[in-house]
Amino acid sequence: MDQIIAKAGVLVEAIPYIRTFYGKTFVIKYGGNAMINESLKQGVMQDIVLMKFLGVNPVVIHGGGPEITQMLNRVGKKAQFVQGLRVTDAETMEIVQMVLVGKLNKEIVAKLNLIGGKAVGLSGQDANLIRAKKTQPTMPADFQGEIPDVGFVGEVTGIDTTIIDQLIANNYIPVISSIGVGEDGVSYNINADTAAGELAAALRAEKLIMLTDVEGIFENYEDKSSLISALQVEHAYEMINRGQIEGGMIPKVQACITALNHGVNRTHIIDGRLMHSMLLEILTDQGIGTMVVQ
Amino acid sequence: MDQIIAKAGVLVEAIPYIRTFYGKTFVIKYGGNAMINESLKQGVMQDIVLMKFLGVNPVVIHGGGPEITQMLNRVGKKAQFVQGLRVTDAETMEIVQMVLVGKLNKEIVAKLNLIGGKAVGLSGQDANLIRAKKTQPTMPADFQGEIPDVGFVGEVTGIDTTIIDQLIANNYIPVISSIGVGEDGVSYNINADTAAGELAAALRAEKLIMLTDVEGIFENYEDKSSLISALQVEHAYEMINRGQIEGGMIPKVQACITALNHGVNRTHIIDGRLMHSMLLEILTDQGIGTMVVQ
Amino acid sequence: MDQIIAKAGVLVEAIPYIRTFYGKTFVIKYGGNAMINESLKQGVMQDIVLMKFLGVNPVVIHGGGPEITQMLNRVGKKAQFVQGLRVTDAETMEIVQMVLVGKLNKEIVAKLNLIGGKAVGLSGQDANLIRAKKTQPTMPADFQGEIPDVGFVGEVTGIDTTIIDQLIANNYIPVISSIGVGEDGVSYNINADTAAGELAAALRAEKLIMLTDVEGIFENYEDKSSLISALQVEHAYEMINRGQIEGGMIPKVQACITALNHGVNRTHIIDGRLMHSMLLEILTDQGIGTMVVQ
Amino acid sequence: MDQIIAKAGVLVEAIPYIRTFYGKTFVIKYGGNAMINESLKQGVMQDIVLMKFLGVNPVVIHGGGPEITQMLNRVGKKAQFVQGLRVTDAETMEIVQMVLVGKLNKEIVAKLNLIGGKAVGLSGQDANLIRAKKTQPTMPADFQGEIPDVGFVGEVTGIDTTIIDQLIANNYIPVISSIGVGEDGVSYNINADTAAGELAAALRAEKLIMLTDVEGIFENYEDKSSLISALQVEHAYEMINRGQIEGGMIPKVQACITALNHGVNRTHIIDGRLMHSMLLEILTDQGIGTMVVQ
Amino acid sequence: MDQIIAKAGVLVEAIPYIRTFYGKTFVIKYGGNAMINESLKQGVMQDIVLMKFLGVNPVVIHGGGPEITQMLNRVGKKAQFVQGLRVTDAETMEIVQMVLVGKLNKEIVAKLNLIGGKAVGLSGQDANLIRAKKTQPTMPADFQGEIPDVGFVGEVTGIDTTIIDQLIANNYIPVISSIGVGEDGVSYNINADTAAGELAAALRAEKLIMLTDVEGIFENYEDKSSLISALQVEHAYEMINRGQIEGGMIPKVQACITALNHGVNRTHIIDGRLMHSMLLEILTDQGIGTMVVQ
Amino acid sequence: MDQIIAKAGVLVEAIPYIRTFYGKTFVIKYGGNAMINESLKQGVMQDIVLMKFLGVNPVVIHGGGPEITQMLNRVGKKAQFVQGLRVTDAETMEIVQMVLVGKLNKEIVAKLNLIGGKAVGLSGQDANLIRAKKTQPTMPADFQGEIPDVGFVGEVTGIDTTIIDQLIANNYIPVISSIGVGEDGVSYNINADTAAGELAAALRAEKLIMLTDVEGIFENYEDKSSLISALQVEHAYEMINRGQIEGGMIPKVQACITALNHGVNRTHIIDGRLMHSMLLEILTDQGIGTMVVQ
Repeated sequence: MDQIIAKAGVLVEAIPYIRTFYGKTFVIKYGGNAMINESLKQGVMQDIVLMKFLGVNPVVIHGGGPEITQMLNRVGKKAQFVQGLRVTDAETMEIVQMVLVGKLNKEIVAKLNLIGGKAVGLSGQDANLIRAKKTQPTMPADFQGEIPDVGFVGEVTGIDTTIIDQLIANNYIPVISSIGVGEDGVSYNINADTAAGELAAALRAEKLIMLTDVEGIFENYEDKSSLISALQVEHAYEMINRGQIEGGMIPKVQACITALNHGVNRTHIIDGRLMHSMLLEILTDQGIGTMVVQ
Repeated sequence: MDQIIAKAGVLVEAIPYIRTFYGKTFVIKYGGNAMINESLKQGVMQDIVLMKFLGVNPVVIHGGGPEITQMLNRVGKKAQFVQGLRVTDAETMEIVQMVLVGKLNKEIVAKLNLIGGKAVGLSGQDANLIRAKKTQPTMPADFQGEIPDVGFVGEVTGIDTTIIDQLIANNYIPVISSIGVGEDGVSYNINADTAAGELAAALRAEKLIMLTDVEGIFENYEDKSSLISALQVEHAYEMINRGQIEGGMIPKVQACITALNHGVNRTHIIDGRLMHSMLLEILTDQGIGTMVVQ
Repeated sequence: MDQIIAKAGVLVEAIPYIRTFYGKTFVIKYGGNAMINESLKQGVMQDIVLMKFLGVNPVVIHGGGPEITQMLNRVGKKAQFVQGLRVTDAETMEIVQMVLVGKLNKEIVAKLNLIGGKAVGLSGQDANLIRAKKTQPTMPADFQGEIPDVGFVGEVTGIDTTIIDQLIANNYIPVISSIGVGEDGVSYNINADTAAGELAAALRAEKLIMLTDVEGIFENYEDKSSLISALQVEHAYEMINRGQIEGGMIPKVQACITALNHGVNRTHIIDGRLMHSMLLEILTDQGIGTMVVQ
Repeated sequence: MDQIIAKAGVLVEAIPYIRTFYGKTFVIKYGGNAMINESLKQGVMQDIVLMKFLGVNPVVIHGGGPEITQMLNRVGKKAQFVQGLRVTDAETMEIVQMVLVGKLNKEIVAKLNLIGGKAVGLSGQDANLIRAKKTQPTMPADFQGEIPDVGFVGEVTGIDTTIIDQLIANNYIPVISSIGVGEDGVSYNINADTAAGELAAALRAEKLIMLTDVEGIFENYEDKSSLISALQVEHAYEMINRGQIEGGMIPKVQACITALNHGVNRTHIIDGRLMHSMLLEILTDQGIGTMVVQ
Repeated sequence: MDQIIAKAGVLVEAIPYIRTFYGKTFVIKYGGNAMINESLKQGVMQDIVLMKFLGVNPVVIHGGGPEITQMLNRVGKKAQFVQGLRVTDAETMEIVQMVLVGKLNKEIVAKLNLIGGKAVGLSGQDANLIRAKKTQPTMPADFQGEIPDVGFVGEVTGIDTTIIDQLIANNYIPVISSIGVGEDGVSYNINADTAAGELAAALRAEKLIMLTDVEGIFENYEDKSSLISALQVEHAYEMINRGQIEGGMIPKVQACITALNHGVNRTHIIDGRLMHSMLLEILTDQGIGTMVVQ
Repeated sequence: MDQIIAKAGVLVEAIPYIRTFYGKTFVIKYGGNAMINESLKQGVMQDIVLMKFLGVNPVVIHGGGPEITQMLNRVGKKAQFVQGLRVTDAETMEIVQMVLVGKLNKEIVAKLNLIGGKAVGLSGQDANLIRAKKTQPTMPADFQGEIPDVGFVGEVTGIDTTIIDQLIANNYIPVISSIGVGEDGVSYNINADTAAGELAAALRAEKLIMLTDVEGIFENYEDKSSLISALQVEHAYEMINRGQIEGGMIPKVQACITALNHGVNRTHIIDGRLMHSMLLEILTDQGIGTMVVQ
């Protein structure tokens, strides 16, 4: 019986947090290990549905790295990269879209619904949600010659949140694949972190949560005790310039900054490998990972 | 960290229950020890506010036995009872109403609001919520002579739930004092258990929860292992007839039956002396107390 | 038949006034003799319900001086005043609240409903309607030593009109007891005149009507022919400074000024001892009492 | 001052009537002397606007006998009747419509607006409000030969109240000319009494009020003391058969019966020559004229 | 079959135009030959109803020159003009209103409804739609003596579009007669072109379309090849000053300028003698007539 | 100019059809050649967007035969059929879903949006739109042994149209892939014809339009003059039994019958190889293909 009462205590402790976030919108960038490991997957889905029942409006956006590569291999396409951007010819783009929209998105939707959510999947084409244009790789300063064409890699030119607002108003959980649509109706592959930042900004979300495969951002990556709880935007820029933040972490941090610049209140980079890490971030005083702040 | 994850687990476990009760109305009869002991009081208030945040629409109804007696003593009125009904002259009725509406109701409202609820107190007069008429004591079969007048003791003749429906629609927690209003605008003292049953019936609530000071109903009161988890209405009548259910428990059981007869799905008699007993009843498989069922 | 036609004439004469006030909100401070004399009481209730049917939105706020004193006497508490403020210990506050909320408020609500209004009573705790903080007596300029503690006497720190707006939208007549609630959930006794002014200001009411026991404000109180029909705010301040306006009339005049400063169109100090004085003020050219104007 | 208080009394007396009719729809057939005499006209307009402010939804329908005849004379058309129906050739119909819709309707609308109503004029063509077909005169039993063609005289085949419901919802007073529109878009002249009955029926109005130029229906027309206050439908039929009700009174009584048969609660034939007769009927116990009842 | 496919092609070609105008309001001044010739009449009605089905909100306003003159002749009134304004005594005004509101307006409404529109006719009195005041003729510079009184000729002082907005929201086609109502409830005859300009301005319409009996405005009226497709406001003023634009064309051009000055996007002067000219203007690249532009 | 006027004529001719279908829902099964040939594709998209602008609510559902086979070939899966059902192992199902949802659906959505529609793509998982269960092949009467498992081939068990109703209410064009979701969240491949019938039934659509690659149903397939314009359900059953209707035409005819049985008004089997065939069916008297009728 004591154990039961302890359980009740946990729920009651959550009240002030629930109260704070009631009716607010959270954008969740879902990716990394939490998208591969079945048990973590289940945990994320539970966290999202619980949030919804607690009165938060979660909006999920996802990419899909490993699955895409796997499918490309299967049809015999070799991955090729220019300055970190995947060279995306029409055939590759088709595969990317099929995997994101036709496989991963529907898997997330079905899992959320199974637990009791009411999820609806969207891609950038739907209701012209994510408009995009072709992007060009940022070449090194000393680069000469013609900038190589990376194909259907795009950057966001605008987000029309109407359909998301309507889905939220009808109590759905929108699940969005990071595909953009060009003026001409052509699809573009958009970095999911970047898209998440733009989406949070456009929705003026309360929170942007980036699920990753690290504990957060470290002052010194070697020293596990140097995890930064709250990272000032200014300091983030310095760390990028100094190379302390690098690789795939850069678009994540930049997404947070984009969001903050457009009125998002809090942005979090959270360890998706930790079970229920989102729930803990939201419903306890226990700060998880790194919060990027103005 | 393990402890934290365990906490998350508790929340996640609650999902299927939350899902079931989302948007449903629960009528809670608040009384007994849970209305006197400060820490239990706080627990009940937390449970109610949490319910609200979880999407349940709690409607609270309360009586106020001991506080009324205390105030009557203070102004030098002596309590007098006929067949279990308090003889209620005009002066007594005024005191009853002042204590219920002016003291206890506002205390509950203020406490709920302090935790983050949006509570609004009502009495039977407000928007003609609880209409009542004078009641007469049920005298023993062999009684002769004139039936004694018990004064302003009333029975419910109708409940107009309009104001409650509107408050719920605007996300308030209605808190109701069990006072009824007669055709002529006169106030009547109504048994709070009975009023709770009528209210649950009128609202076609999902659940009626009666907080009491016992573990529930026992087949044999001496034998603590004979607690009845689910009591059939038919069996309840037998137990009343045999005197196994007696005294103040009778109106509680009858309130449950009234509610069940008007489409209320579940009715519970719960031990209010157990911290967070309501939350446990709602959010776990752990059945608490006695459920009265059709 | 001529008499009948004359009656119709009275109704028709009222048209331009009705037209002017259609859909507007009037805050009515109910108090004084009109709250004690049964026949005046009935008159005020009729006026309020008629206003409602004529399309005005009356909002009633009341205090309750004599009844409170009477109840305090009954439980053996002696009234004590510091600079005109009643010293209000916890026990006194409880009595004040019980009388205002549990007795007078419900009596007004029941009476209005009996005539055909749909009234709902509220106290400052309900939906956190009137937020307050502890007040301190204003001591004479030459006062030395520690300012005496007057206990639970409060001043308004904010009014959240949401619940009133919703009740009005649903065609109810809100009836409000002048009790405020502190940050900590504690109740404070608020001067009803002051609360009326704040309420009218917060609602941006069309009119604030203060029912009192005098004909209005006189230039020279001795000279009954010196009644001031329209009192300029500036002149009001002078009269207060010169002591021409004094005692309980000061908070009434100040309430009018507060209201005027927040966009209330007209404020009236009206003789509640005159039958149907409110109706006459509203529906005829006959100015009653003193109008305080910018 | 006594006179003023008496005025207030008149208003207060009206409360129970106002309460009863609040939000109800009254169909008013406006015609006869009250449409010619300027001062009676003004009285009727005042009554209608006051009703609106009192929460009643008045719907006005009018004919226009004398004005039509006058205009026909002016353009040199001679009136010709067959069995009481005006022979209405295309040119006559045009004049009828111009007078009703272009003159009288606009005059009523302008007068109502001047007093403070928000009136909107409609004719049967507007939103296909009154659909009609050609009618034939009812010839005597012994009539032989071809039934004469009375031209554009119509009978109601259907009323689509949508536009009226919308105008009422937006607080307008609809003012309707008794013109019907045929399948082919052609206009028909409809007896205004008959149209009023059909309209009240279609709207399921609370009341149908027919303004006429007599005190009401008399058992014996010679004996002014034999005015029938409440006329049973059955008795009405007898009186028509016996010729006690005759001429223009027949369609009025039949309109009342039509209305009663479709759920209209009360139907009144009222003396429009008596100033404010409608107001007296509605707001006093004084029954005016004859009420036709089921 | 080829012909059928060609038909489909016509519809498909219209898509981009439909898309542009979806949900926009067009004010159509209906007059001239298109109001007299039966087949052109039918064409205009079809165009308006089709517009409505295509998602445009047409608002029709009409005058009625020749029909008025004809009716005045019929009752023996002689037309008299001062500086181009018809001298309108009370009797004339009555005839004007009867013809416009009672005849032409209802004819338009009935025709639109017959094709499948839901039209509702209005005059300036309805809901105080067009408020007006008496106008005075603009006398020549060298005029001396008293300015002649032209009677009930009015100019617009205000337009309250509330009723139109409500009718549009309920999918009706408003059809408006150019009659204004004065402060005193008196009717004024308003130039329909001018009223159309004011109406388009008040509605912030997307387009104002003036149907006339000429191809448009010519640089040189003799030279049919000099039709001006797009006329700058500035140049329009020059042409008026130079007398290149004269007579009845002046108020039409001024109406366009009024509209443009209040945010109307496009204004067109179109040849109403050309079948379906409006439809062609709206649904094809084929510019018809003269567009007046900022 | 004559040509232009002819164009206007085409639009005007369409009015009665537009009027009939205004606000009605049409379910369109998109498939066959019209899904492969680029110019036909464009034609179908134009027809759908035009319908939308004309006030019809089109709901598109599609399958994707050839593209699926192509993709399966590409990843080296061989197609295998049992009684006409594709044996669908988990890997095949994944490919089917990726092609339908991730490729074809998004292509349709993007094309519709490019022309000016507001399309949103959905799959059966979204908001649990199409619920399904595993199906079993119907084996020949003389079949013995165990029925072969065809894997993830499903049949519809329920359609929840809530999300579609909401999208329609917000003016979107829903585009649906014929994938169903099982109790356990697993995806099933559903025959798109069958799904279209169920969808039309669930929506109580006005029309079900099946785009195919034949002119319609022939009494005698050899005799091109024997096209059946209107096929009675009873006769359809006979033709199926006699083998006159066979193969892929059977589910199409059955879909029509399902729809008719649930209140769909008209069902059409139309030649998608004919440009704008849908538009012609809807907006002209020209019946295209075969209409299946009760």
